[in-house]
Amino acid sequence: MEHVVIIGAGFGGLYAARALRREPVRVTVIDRHNHHTFQPLLYQVATAGLSASDIATPIRHVLRKQKNTSVILAEVKAIDPVQKRVIFEDGELGYDKLIVAAGASHSYFGNDAWAAFAPGLKTVEDALEIRRRVLVAFEAAEREPDPARRSAWMTFVVVGAGPTGVELAGALSELSRHTLRREFRHIDPSKARIVLLEGAGQVLPSYVPELGEKAKQQLAALNVEVRTNCRVTGIDEEGVSIGDKRIEARTVLWGAGVAASAIARTLGAPLDRAGRVLVAPDLTVPGHEDIYVIGDLASLKQEDGTPVPGVAPAAIQGGRHAARNVSRTLRGLPRLPFRYNDRGSMATIGRAAAVADFGKLKLSGFLAWLAWLFVHILFLIGFRNRFLVLFSWALSYVTYQRASRLITGEIPPLLEDHHAPELEARKDGGAVRRHQPMEPARTRA
Amino acid sequence: MEHVVIIGAGFGGLYAARALRREPVRVTVIDRHNHHTFQPLLYQVATAGLSASDIATPIRHVLRKQKNTSVILAEVKAIDPVQKRVIFEDGELGYDKLIVAAGASHSYFGNDAWAAFAPGLKTVEDALEIRRRVLVAFEAAEREPDPARRSAWMTFVVVGAGPTGVELAGALSELSRHTLRREFRHIDPSKARIVLLEGAGQVLPSYVPELGEKAKQQLAALNVEVRTNCRVTGIDEEGVSIGDKRIEARTVLWGAGVAASAIARTLGAPLDRAGRVLVAPDLTVPGHEDIYVIGDLASLKQEDGTPVPGVAPAAIQGGRHAARNVSRTLRGLPRLPFRYNDRGSMATIGRAAAVADFGKLKLSGFLAWLAWLFVHILFLIGFRNRFLVLFSWALSYVTYQRASRLITGEIPPLLEDHHAPELEARKDGGAVRRHQPMEPARTRA
Repeated sequence: MEHVVIIGAGFGGLYAARALRREPVRVTVIDRHNHHTFQPLLYQVATAGLSASDIATPIRHVLRKQKNTSVILAEVKAIDPVQKRVIFEDGELGYDKLIVAAGASHSYFGNDAWAAFAPGLKTVEDALEIRRRVLVAFEAAEREPDPARRSAWMTFVVVGAGPTGVELAGALSELSRHTLRREFRHIDPSKARIVLLEGAGQVLPSYVPELGEKAKQQLAALNVEVRTNCRVTGIDEEGVSIGDKRIEARTVLWGAGVAASAIARTLGAPLDRAGRVLVAPDLTVPGHEDIYVIGDLASLKQEDGTPVPGVAPAAIQGGRHAARNVSRTLRGLPRLPFRYNDRGSMATIGRAAAVADFGKLKLSGFLAWLAWLFVHILFLIGFRNRFLVLFSWALSYVTYQRASRLITGEIPPLLEDHHAPELEARKDGGAVRRHQPMEPARTRA
Repeated sequence: MEHVVIIGAGFGGLYAARALRREPVRVTVIDRHNHHTFQPLLYQVATAGLSASDIATPIRHVLRKQKNTSVILAEVKAIDPVQKRVIFEDGELGYDKLIVAAGASHSYFGNDAWAAFAPGLKTVEDALEIRRRVLVAFEAAEREPDPARRSAWMTFVVVGAGPTGVELAGALSELSRHTLRREFRHIDPSKARIVLLEGAGQVLPSYVPELGEKAKQQLAALNVEVRTNCRVTGIDEEGVSIGDKRIEARTVLWGAGVAASAIARTLGAPLDRAGRVLVAPDLTVPGHEDIYVIGDLASLKQEDGTPVPGVAPAAIQGGRHAARNVSRTLRGLPRLPFRYNDRGSMATIGRAAAVADFGKLKLSGFLAWLAWLFVHILFLIGFRNRFLVLFSWALSYVTYQRASRLITGEIPPLLEDHHAPELEARKDGGAVRRHQPMEPARTRA
């Protein structure tokens, strides 16, 4: 039996594997995580609304009934298209047909030093790191007596107003204005400043201007400061530079650029500027008709000249199409060209706010949010998760609470200058430093 | 107003803070985590049954309505009883009254090198680390072609058959025999070997022999190998030594010893062998009547000569009692001695199995398990958690599935010798090494 190897169990890889479940092939799915991550809801994990396990399902559990399929946990380092094998750090595996669905990670446009200060959001680990930073920032602000430093802890900058950036900014607003509002004694979390920076001329640059404008209005209603036509020139531990302007912020999140997985480079095939593989219309790699590339790793122009977008529905359709072409090849039939069926796109902005573009039908506000919720729950893998997420969401909606507000991982010292010799005992209940006792937050609704 | 500082927001600290909510004092609760951890269910997080957020509630959320109370995130390094201040790495804080509820961590009985190979279970981080190791072990076994190595990956040793060890061993059995059973292609997870080692002569040494025997029977029914009177003499990356015997196991978990928090040593007060503070009957530290020590950090003999046990109910009662003595002191009343009211103890063993000792009434099996479940859900902090955990549990009970099977954190290379020069391309679907193709697992029910 032919051996079909699938690299990556995101939307593309998982749907490709499922489409091969009744085919006379052996399938091996390789992923560097043991779980499929439902990326559209990662921003909820990053902002403490859902727990990681709500949106992560073990890959082998999803595919457990598919007897022709093995799942292995391994990180692919390279592909050897000549010897037809996939190379891991700790082994290798031969294939007859290969479907590469390794996805993308963040791109800092050549400023890799920014990565340490502005984490992006692609994996569960990324989401937990962002959650840690956001929650620690409020804790640090509560203890920090110096007003300028406190204000830097209370400032959150999101770079990039694509769907991820918009979702993060909206959820941060919800977190600070509702969830945390009454829980601190020395700060007022609802005064947190949330800034969304976008290089292009509108919010959600991939959407029509009309919906970009709606999104901007909804963000403004959530007290998110939106700045378009704004190019970030520097990011460090203390904040963000925009030319000669400066925003002091201890928490910066990156939602701007994506870069194709480095695996693409090992194929020896032509790549586009973002490092994605320029695939043939049938999704194979030119010169290697036994290798398919799908999802965020593939670059393909449609007949009308527009590129297939890097969104979940395109990955799902690509995965199914690659599997279909594998099957057709087995039967001696010619491979078919891929056509992306664009059913629309949507982005959520916060509590009951979203924009949705279904071609002729364009929605914003509550109706768009309902549509968004419905589609996302529907596509979430696994019954238990679907139910728990819906329940968690309903409860959050009513109580304004968020389910997963725990900080895990290292907590660094929150205050600076703590070895200052002026340190002395104080009994005023604040964290003691050489500063004067701080005022309690003034407004408390 | 007097300033009462509470170190630690476990059961002791949290119940002390709550008991002070209507008193004319300012309260500050300090913890190195932002969440209260419901320790009795940590073993469920470690074995993928519950997610971390199910059993961790933000401390400031629990205390949000208590207007006389601040919560700060900080790690206490030392106490200065002369100047009456608590010292953090990044600051300090003065107090008038101090309640120390900093708890305990693992003790390896002088073999600190074992810590790296046999993690204990006290914090959410510990639980996530154990979960990572356990889930990675099955993934590695699935890829490992060498039978001896595979068998070491499939062997799990739990050291110490106290309640934590028994719970871990039982849950590991459930995980391997039910949850994972049909999801692998090259191994049969239900053949995993789970060994529970205990130095004393019975399982659950703190229980009456009758219940220890029942627990042993229930463990045997779950295929857990129990060895009592068995002293571990060595632990390394490859397994456990017991005198001149050896168990090859890649996963070893530590449930044996506890050591008091190092904060105790900075008080300059007399300590017991485990490093706990020998407190006066009113829970104060001899010589420092403004400092109370409660919970796992306190060592106190009751009137009948038996020590107050290191269990959650004792911490809760101690917290309330310390708060009461603080209030009485404020009113000019004498402090009262603490009396531990033992309402019984229970330990769960696995799916629908437990033992419970309510003095005259001794239960084991399903009834004991129901009692265990009822009490634990009742004491779990927060409505949302209580509901979600109960729901999660009910679903697991019916489906045998476990909710949180994601691996987070670093995944090391799973196979050794992977740079062996004999490496070559293979197409048999297994992870490729120089070994012959392995047989599929023989039994598959």
